[in-house]
Amino acid sequence: MTNDQLAQRLLYAIQNNRVDGAGQIARQALSGLADYCSQAHLTEGDIQQACRLARQLQRIRPSMAPLQQLLGTWLREVEQNDLSFAQAAAHAMQLVQYSKEAVARSASAMVQRIKPGSVVITHSWSSTIRELFCLLSQWPCQAIVTESRPGCEGYRTAELMSELEIPCRLITDAQMGVWFENADMAVIGADMLLEDGSIVNKAGSYLLALAAKAANKPFYVCCETFKQVDLLPSMVELEQHNGNELGAPSLAHIEIKNQYFEVVPAHLITEVVTEQASPQKLP
Amino acid sequence: MTNDQLAQRLLYAIQNNRVDGAGQIARQALSGLADYCSQAHLTEGDIQQACRLARQLQRIRPSMAPLQQLLGTWLREVEQNDLSFAQAAAHAMQLVQYSKEAVARSASAMVQRIKPGSVVITHSWSSTIRELFCLLSQWPCQAIVTESRPGCEGYRTAELMSELEIPCRLITDAQMGVWFENADMAVIGADMLLEDGSIVNKAGSYLLALAAKAANKPFYVCCETFKQVDLLPSMVELEQHNGNELGAPSLAHIEIKNQYFEVVPAHLITEVVTEQASPQKLP
Repeated sequence: MTNDQLAQRLLYAIQNNRVDGAGQIARQALSGLADYCSQAHLTEGDIQQACRLARQLQRIRPSMAPLQQLLGTWLREVEQNDLSFAQAAAHAMQLVQYSKEAVARSASAMVQRIKPGSVVITHSWSSTIRELFCLLSQWPCQAIVTESRPGCEGYRTAELMSELEIPCRLITDAQMGVWFENADMAVIGADMLLEDGSIVNKAGSYLLALAAKAANKPFYVCCETFKQVDLLPSMVELEQHNGNELGAPSLAHIEIKNQYFEVVPAHLITEVVTEQASPQKLP
Repeated sequence: MTNDQLAQRLLYAIQNNRVDGAGQIARQALSGLADYCSQAHLTEGDIQQACRLARQLQRIRPSMAPLQQLLGTWLREVEQNDLSFAQAAAHAMQLVQYSKEAVARSASAMVQRIKPGSVVITHSWSSTIRELFCLLSQWPCQAIVTESRPGCEGYRTAELMSELEIPCRLITDAQMGVWFENADMAVIGADMLLEDGSIVNKAGSYLLALAAKAANKPFYVCCETFKQVDLLPSMVELEQHNGNELGAPSLAHIEIKNQYFEVVPAHLITEVVTEQASPQKLP
């Protein structure tokens, strides 16, 4: 496989990953960059090829804050310190590890806010939510999980609950209001933390936050600080994908919209729980 | 076909109608009763068979207020006035006609509250919404329509918009919050009007009402007064259907919930618009 084919394969995989959260996609991109740098047929003079690929990866998913942040950190390190391919590959994998630890620490901090026996409602799928429920499975708890159309990442969350033997109700997105009365709190991940304290996450998150507010119950966001960006809600480009993903009939005068992400304003969020309770040192 | 087979066929059709609104289902039941009464092989002594069938129809869909109301009116008339089969059949069809007129009058009253050029967001499907958009298609307006999982009645609403050539965006239920900023108001039908001013409608209606409130935009309910019942929200039996309808994977420890209806509390409703602006006389 040529360098160009390797790069194209990675770009395609990142562009079309609709099922993972932003943190996991960033780790996928870093691991891919490490693989790229490890290819034996690359010459030392080609490190700028790898940097170009990193910038293309950033541009291809503009809504993915961790992709911007982690690849930005990697790019600065590679370019400022004139790293070799081997060093650049190793640094990418260090950042993957660092990101995984941040996820685990965020989930640990979140667990401290949940009483045993609680019913937690969540929406979509994210690495922090996975970590959180792995921890929660050690004491009695229950979950309510939404489908999260059109990608149905909620089915994956439900599979996790099944593996962890956590009693769980799976509902349509439309039912999140009526089922909230059976929940003690909502916890979701995030794709971006914005400057004004609002967050960006999968469409439907805003409705869940409104339902939490109406029920006077807490609405938590659990994620790593790598999701932080210096943007206000009005400056955020929210990804829209192909309407065909809905599987709806194609009709004259009807435009099928498939907005993946939306903003949850700060005033609806009880707390954004990150790894900062126990800070790490950047590798 | 025997009388019993006729009755069973009608009961089956009413029990399994998941796509029509409550008003249309009540009219379907009345038309079926008229057919039943018109069968030549029924003897005059059998009118109580028809009354029994009417009561079974009422019990089979307890959440359907118009079924309770319209069949209740029919039963009183048949039993108090000792109607013949021919008279009972005619009365059922008069009630069908009366109900249709109430739908048309409700929609006419609603239109007066919508400025030309408005963008109206709606959820699910109902006879009043159909009538409303037929009227609205005569001036410029736009629509935003949700899928309304799991039955996807929203596809039917989108088909109507397509036929009426009304520019329309079709969205997942999860997107109703983020798209509300593009709407001027929400209008939905209802399956029940409750004593305290709250209403019962398809799951997702409550979320739409919360989104309207958050956007400080009106949330209208348009339906006939036949949907009125003397119940408070805590007394309402909300239909739950088979979780298989979701098409989700079957997993250990996971219970798939399919609650069809939910309550929208009165304080979220701008106005319930009915035919009472121009009252009719009961046939």
